[in-house]
Amino acid sequence: MKFNVILFENFETLDVFGPVEIIGKLDQHYKIEFYSEKGGIVRSSQNVRVQSIPLPEMGEKGVVLIPGGFGTRKEVDNTPFIDALRQTAEASQFVLTVCTGSALLARTGLLSGRRATSNKMAFDWVKEQDKSVLWKRKARWTKDDRYYTSSGVSAGIDMTLGFVADRHGIETAERIAKGIEYLWNRDADDDPFN
Amino acid sequence: MKFNVILFENFETLDVFGPVEIIGKLDQHYKIEFYSEKGGIVRSSQNVRVQSIPLPEMGEKGVVLIPGGFGTRKEVDNTPFIDALRQTAEASQFVLTVCTGSALLARTGLLSGRRATSNKMAFDWVKEQDKSVLWKRKARWTKDDRYYTSSGVSAGIDMTLGFVADRHGIETAERIAKGIEYLWNRDADDDPFN
Repeated sequence: MKFNVILFENFETLDVFGPVEIIGKLDQHYKIEFYSEKGGIVRSSQNVRVQSIPLPEMGEKGVVLIPGGFGTRKEVDNTPFIDALRQTAEASQFVLTVCTGSALLARTGLLSGRRATSNKMAFDWVKEQDKSVLWKRKARWTKDDRYYTSSGVSAGIDMTLGFVADRHGIETAERIAKGIEYLWNRDADDDPFN
Repeated sequence: MKFNVILFENFETLDVFGPVEIIGKLDQHYKIEFYSEKGGIVRSSQNVRVQSIPLPEMGEKGVVLIPGGFGTRKEVDNTPFIDALRQTAEASQFVLTVCTGSALLARTGLLSGRRATSNKMAFDWVKEQDKSVLWKRKARWTKDDRYYTSSGVSAGIDMTLGFVADRHGIETAERIAKGIEYLWNRDADDDPFN
């Protein structure tokens, strides 16, 4: 299955590469690729320049990961990008967001009536993107049907391990966490930052 | 100060981008840049393609970060690369390694007689790279003079927060950890994976 990561200028570095580290341990199941609206090099807020493919060339869907970061402030108003995001999310089996990535997904309308979370510092701004979402401030991550949303930055790692546990069993998630010497917070409701 | 990250084919994604996430929060102090032996696009084991500058064009030194990953198995025998790494490390104020990055640094000879650690699964192989290093299996990270080495993958985040605490005070490290909703293991000797 494809694991398609969406990039945009000023994405948050760890929002992307925490989940990618986890999913990369399951290369028998997932092929990771990176996409952006126009393709080419995309730069994170921490000056990481990553090569990406234009979104229209995605082809096979599967899982889509939408990170957050400072760039979301601009991208929520980028209508062609939000439209492309909606089409991608609709055609995907699973949609994962990290941090303020849920603001972008909220703008597509697909989170309406669903439980979702985001990071603490930007929470009020995120809520404004779609007030019909059942925003949950206290959550390490949320799962509602095929939508997973995590709270701030590092929470994306815990959520992705949770996604792995749901799909491949908790032993698989535990083995990956141990392999990267990571203490997994496995309880989606245990939010130490609220 | 420059924060120079060394990349090579099949580096481990989170070894690089955990520390980069932390240091990126101190952009008033550090300018992050990415280097590789020949420059251009370098690919991690998790298919992240990152743009880099050739090592000889580094210019200003400062902090150098050496990640680990599967690619270290090949790079320990790449003499021109190890030589360039030695020159870079010698000219830098601080040298940080994550996971099997300490195997590369060990090969330069600069760790001889110094305390260092690495990840658990590759520990015996890492030790062989230079037996005169004071290898310490049980450590989240080690600090010996200007050399910081961390244990596996995620430990690089804790070590980098420790580096920040040493240089900029523990409150700064705690503020960054909280901002990215990360539970920092602040005790270098508390190694939950040993």
